[in-house]
Amino acid sequence: MNDDCVFCKIIEGDLPSHKIYETDDLIAFLDAEPVSKGHALVVPKKHVETIHEAHDMDYMWNGIVKVSTAVKDAFNAEGVNVEQNNGEVAGQEVMHMHFHITPRYTGEEIEIEYDRTELKSGEKLAEEIRSEI
Amino acid sequence: MNDDCVFCKIIEGDLPSHKIYETDDLIAFLDAEPVSKGHALVVPKKHVETIHEAHDMDYMWNGIVKVSTAVKDAFNAEGVNVEQNNGEVAGQEVMHMHFHITPRYTGEEIEIEYDRTELKSGEKLAEEIRSEI
Repeated sequence: MNDDCVFCKIIEGDLPSHKIYETDDLIAFLDAEPVSKGHALVVPKKHVETIHEAHDMDYMWNGIVKVSTAVKDAFNAEGVNVEQNNGEVAGQEVMHMHFHITPRYTGEEIEIEYDRTELKSGEKLAEEIRSEI
Repeated sequence: MNDDCVFCKIIEGDLPSHKIYETDDLIAFLDAEPVSKGHALVVPKKHVETIHEAHDMDYMWNGIVKVSTAVKDAFNAEGVNVEQNNGEVAGQEVMHMHFHITPRYTGEEIEIEYDRTELKSGEKLAEEIRSEI
């Protein structure tokens, strides 16, 4: 519980939400500013800021799979995006780790212009990452 | 193993990749068309198309957390996006479930124009989703 955290307040029941799923460890509720019909968030009850602090939270998987499938089935969505942002530079707005579950509908595609490049020096980069694991 | 699947071929070693992490159940390697330095994919060895078939794959969590943290640490990224797309309408290109792990760097933000709206009829929507869980 972090007194300044809006998600902690929702978890405690001190702020309202439209809850769709809850276990001992996590809660899922509708995003208050949805980008599509059924846009939901899956949030651990324990306050951690980013996924880098979440090594012991594999219970999140079940919540993500269940909620992704439920929003798809509830509204016959053709697709679902699962997205989790860490850090302001990555678009994180609430500093309590959360997964966006966003149903997608034909005709309502969002355009994301990724500037994809060809991989260069891949083995050198891979070695730098492997050395951190 | 799906004979037509490029990720199954990478997993089998029939196509090259820059591998960064591997367990009995999953593999992580660099994206061949990175959107940022260190852009990696975490992929289950079992061929499933979407997250909706992945109820028994909570081993993915550990891979996602480990790789997200390693790419951040390897290149001193200020943030990381974790993203998983289901269905063509959601931007899925390879029909074998995978998580994009994309480090973000200050000055290299990507602009995503989400058309956020105010939630309406939230409790009705929540009830429709709850009935699917």
